[in-house]
This record gives sequence, C-alpha cells and structure tokens, in this order.
Amino acid sequence: MKKEIEVWFRDFQDRLCQALEAGDGEAKFKEDIWQHESGGGGRSRIIENGALLEKGGVNFSAVSGEMPLAAATKLLLPDPRYFATGVSVVLHPQNPMVPIIHMNVRYLEAGNGEAWFGGGIDLTPIYVDPAQARFFHAQLKAVCDKHHPTYYTRFKQWADDYFYIPHRHETRGIGGIFFDRLTPNGNTSPEQLFAFVQDVADVFAPTYLAIADQNRNLPYNEQQKQWQLLRRGRYVEFNLVHDRGTKFGLETGGRVESILMSLPAFASWKYNYQPEPGSAEAQTQQYLRKNINWLQES
Amino acid sequence: MKKEIEVWFRDFQDRLCQALEAGDGEAKFKEDIWQHESGGGGRSRIIENGALLEKGGVNFSAVSGEMPLAAATKLLLPDPRYFATGVSVVLHPQNPMVPIIHMNVRYLEAGNGEAWFGGGIDLTPIYVDPAQARFFHAQLKAVCDKHHPTYYTRFKQWADDYFYIPHRHETRGIGGIFFDRLTPNGNTSPEQLFAFVQDVADVFAPTYLAIADQNRNLPYNEQQKQWQLLRRGRYVEFNLVHDRGTKFGLETGGRVESILMSLPAFASWKYNYQPEPGSAEAQTQQYLRKNINWLQES
Repeated sequence: MKKEIEVWFRDFQDRLCQALEAGDGEAKFKEDIWQHESGGGGRSRIIENGALLEKGGVNFSAVSGEMPLAAATKLLLPDPRYFATGVSVVLHPQNPMVPIIHMNVRYLEAGNGEAWFGGGIDLTPIYVDPAQARFFHAQLKAVCDKHHPTYYTRFKQWADDYFYIPHRHETRGIGGIFFDRLTPNGNTSPEQLFAFVQDVADVFAPTYLAIADQNRNLPYNEQQKQWQLLRRGRYVEFNLVHDRGTKFGLETGGRVESILMSLPAFASWKYNYQPEPGSAEAQTQQYLRKNINWLQES
Repeated sequence: MKKEIEVWFRDFQDRLCQALEAGDGEAKFKEDIWQHESGGGGRSRIIENGALLEKGGVNFSAVSGEMPLAAATKLLLPDPRYFATGVSVVLHPQNPMVPIIHMNVRYLEAGNGEAWFGGGIDLTPIYVDPAQARFFHAQLKAVCDKHHPTYYTRFKQWADDYFYIPHRHETRGIGGIFFDRLTPNGNTSPEQLFAFVQDVADVFAPTYLAIADQNRNLPYNEQQKQWQLLRRGRYVEFNLVHDRGTKFGLETGGRVESILMSLPAFASWKYNYQPEPGSAEAQTQQYLRKNINWLQES
C-alpha cells in the first residue's frame, strides 16, 4: 500500500500547486528536487511574490532509512527502520486580511510493519472573521463526518492543543483539525484511513481559496500590515520553539530549507505590544484561545 | 556577597543604559519594573527607533525561589532553591554596517550554598570586518588576560561552541567569550571571579560604541538592508531553537517579554538564499565558522 500512498501524495502535490498557481494568478512555483542520504527524497516547491501569496511552500517527500535511536525513541517507534511520505503546505499571503494557512498529510511505516497516518489543517487569520472561521470549521467537519462521527470533535480538540503557544498563552490561530498515529483497527481499515486523509488533502485548496478570494482585494493600511508582521512573529515563535515536526526535522538532519519554508518572508517583534482595547486587533487577540466552538460563533 | 553582586549589577544597568543613550544620541530607554512570583523581580529597559539602535534591551533581574524539579535537574542544581541575578543586553542597530551585539553577566546561588558566575559577549556583524573583529577580540582578550592566562582561549572556544547554529552549520557571528559555572577554587576566590565578571561587563559599552561609531554613518543600499534582515532571521533561529538561556526562561515561566526582547524589530527569511560567489555577503558567510583566530585575521 505504501507505493500507492506515495504516488497519490506526489500527484496531490502537482494538483495542489496547479490550484494555488491558478488561485494566485501571477506567480509560479519553483521546484527543488532533493535526495535523502539514506533513501528516497523529495520535491520542494516555493512560490514567491505572487498577487495573492507573498511566500508559500508545498513539500512532497518519500524517504526511508534508519532513524537515529534517540529519534526513534522520541517517536515511540518499535523499529528504527522507517518509510515516511507526506505533503506539507504553508502559505503566507500578502494581504493582512487573508489568513495564513498550514496543511500536512503524512504516512509512516516502521520496519516491523506498524503503520499510521497523520495530518492536519489549521488557519491563522491576522484578523479573525467569525463567519469565515465558521465556514472553515464547517468544511473540516463535513470531511470528518463523512468518515467517522467522532473525528471532528477529537481532531478539533487535538488541533487546539497542538497549535498552542504556551509561553504566549495563546493559540496560533483559530485551529482546525490535527491527528496523528491513526492506525487501522477492528472498525477501520487502512483503506478507510487513507480515504480520510485524501479527503482532508482535497478539501484544502477549495476551502482556502474561497476565503482568500473573499478577502484578497480588501484595502488595508500601514497599521494593519504591522499587525500582520507581529502575528507572523508569533507564527515563527510557534514553529521554532514548539512545533514538534519542525524540531524533529531539524534534530534528525532533515533538509533545512524545506523544513523552514514555513517561515514568512518578513516578520516583526515589538516589545510588550498590546492592542488597543476595543480595536480589531484586540478582538482577534480575544479569539486566540482553545475550546471555541466556531460552528456556533457569530 | 550576593547582596553586593545584586547591587553592582543594578548599578551597572544604570551606567550601561546611560552610556548607550549617550551613544545613540536620540532615543531613551523605557523601563518596566516587574515582580517575580516567588521573590525578587527585575527592571526591563527597552530602547527603540533611535539614531543608532533600532531596538535594544537591557534587563536586570534578581530573583529567588524554588525551581521546578525538572529545571533544577537540567541545571544539575543540587538544591532547587536558588537566587539568581544578572544583566542581559541585546542591541539591534539600524545600519547594516553596525553589528548586532549581545552580553550577559550572571550569578547564581543554590540553596546549599553552591554558587557560580557566568557570562559572555558575542558580536554578530552583518558584514564581517576583520580589523574590527580583531579589535573586538583583542578587547576581550585584554580583560581575560588581566584575570587568568587561560581565560581567553577557553572562553573564546566556549563561545564558538555555544553561539553555533547546528542546523545551519554556521556560527551566529564572530563569537567572543562565553563562560558558565565559574566557581571559586584553591586558586581563585569569589572576589576574584566577581572582579572578572565586572571587567567583562565594563568592557562592553566602550568596545561596542567604538565599533558602532566607526560604522554608523556608512551608506548602505536596499540589498545590504535585505541581507541584514536575513542575518537577523538567523539570529531569531539561534535564539528560539538553540539558546539555552531563552529556552530555559520560556520553559520555567520567566517573563516572556523580557526574554524575547532579544528578537529584532524586523527579520526576514528567503527560501534557499545563497549569496553570490565573491560578494561581500559570501565573504561574511565564509567567516561564520568556529576556530578562527581573529587576533591574527586581517
């Protein structure tokens, strides 16, 4: 099955890049093909200075080898030999009215045959629009509900917990879904899990482009651009301090430029910045917490 | 002795801020006074949008309490009760021809009476000037040599190892000195160690301002500004991914705004950026490695 998954992920990268290029309307992805030292490799694709996207990356990889023992232990891997394949996306738009978005789908197979799927999508609006947040979560819920009645509730909670910046006491954005180590069991076959992951991947582009198209031509001022840079600073903090995927990749000698394509072209930090009470920025700050039921928020 | 050290560090913060304000010529520090939940507190001072300094911070703190057990274990502390005092400085200048600089001096006393000093200074030029690098290291060597014949060699090596970004295979800048857990022994009294740390602190402002004054009025273009933003991106990577002090502070619930005052006002990331061969940027990149004897570099 792993060959089938790898091929699907590779094709998905192609389809996704085409959809995003069409959505951007100006910029094209540039590709770097790379080999992994112990087997396999990947295709990193970057889009820059587009009409919609300031910087975005879509990585595909399918690598195999033997993990350092420390890394295998960290992953609770029963066997350090592994095969891993997946697609990762981070998009940083130009306009502060358009949210940052991240998506990842992945499959890992250990040497002893144990295998699992993981993935997730989360949205980081610079200005939270409750109606768009509801639309975003409704899209994810529809995909989840198609496959299992508890997926959305569980994976939404998981995203709240995962995309959290403890030192800031705030979430990265409005969350989404996150899941890891989904393994087949008596009720769910590998094929069913794969079908779920495919649907998660496929919902990404139409959902994001629908939101982006609503907002991409909204006017914005210097102060709103500055707020975007500060929010991107928090995105950098999350990715470099907390994101397990980033840390794991850097520690195990992954391809640095592919891992850090998630960082924005420009970010900013201002000492002890506090949005003005009652401002749109303060309103967004209020929304950066766990356990909001976005489907009922208005 | 700890009261004496605390008082000296507090006074040093005052003197340093005065020297930096005079050096900047325009901006003034703003102060936040804060309390630590378990005892003591600090004074965080930030300077922004100056003639010389785009963003800089000078923190003083003197805190006591009981460390979380995991933190104490990490520090190999024999007793989780502690008193810690110190001054930390990071300066991000406006002009890319002026280096970023960092300095820290600190003293820690564990509940069982064990005590030690630590500290360091390191310079991060956006464009390495070998003559200025030589001057910088000669200043540090003179301070070290005054106190111990092996200090400079040992602490310069320690800085090379500490201020290193493993995932980038490069040093943060041209290093400097770094030392930790300096404890009194048969040959060295606590007073002698304290005198060394005082001299390290006192050499900081005149050394940095001498370099800054040479470069602050040099012209620069858009491309050089862009390179500065990229180098600041690496500074962010070091601080958030690797710096033990930053990680320790964030994990143990330190004051986040004081810890992260080290981050620049603006930083940038560009996918797989490579300086043009033969360019000044490529020349600087060549210098970002360990074990350069700056005293002989020309």
